[in-house]
Amino acid sequence: MKHSTVNYYAVIFTSELNDNPEGYTEMVNKIEALAKQQKGFLGMESAREKTGITVSYRETLEDIKNWKAQSEHLIAQQLAKEKWYKKYTVRVCKVEREYSK
Amino acid sequence: MKHSTVNYYAVIFTSELNDNPEGYTEMVNKIEALAKQQKGFLGMESAREKTGITVSYRETLEDIKNWKAQSEHLIAQQLAKEKWYKKYTVRVCKVEREYSK
Repeated sequence: MKHSTVNYYAVIFTSELNDNPEGYTEMVNKIEALAKQQKGFLGMESAREKTGITVSYRETLEDIKNWKAQSEHLIAQQLAKEKWYKKYTVRVCKVEREYSK
Repeated sequence: MKHSTVNYYAVIFTSELNDNPEGYTEMVNKIEALAKQQKGFLGMESAREKTGITVSYRETLEDIKNWKAQSEHLIAQQLAKEKWYKKYTVRVCKVEREYSK
């Protein structure tokens, strides 16, 4: 088992979708491809059952802020609010320790 | 949309299961019930596709440490390593900001 003290950031996005989130999958694919090209992007993990959880990892708070401001992402945020999500929560977190098998 | 500066902790547990994780579901249910009774427990969210993601929230690092040491949980950690998980990562994070719809 590897134990590490680390210093990067995680954005935890949890959500519940509306029944018919038209255009959702296409936009998610587009947004994910875009996220991966951004400076400071470290990784992304997703799973959805009733609740969807996406955790993305970035080097700094600045990288998170830049991503949030990114224009195409803003368009998706707007649509997200109006059409796709029943509810969602975004949590910006500082990752302090990790261990893995 | 509610914006808040907050101060609590998230443990992000991501994993991939082995093909036949015998006894896994029963133990997860037991462990989750136990987690919810612990001091400092604030909430828990899970979803699994290929990757499973469970995020649990607690008030302090001390609460996370106590949970980790909790005996029945230790038993599950042992089984987890041996039988259930192909791989997993645990990240301990300080939640710094959140907003939600």
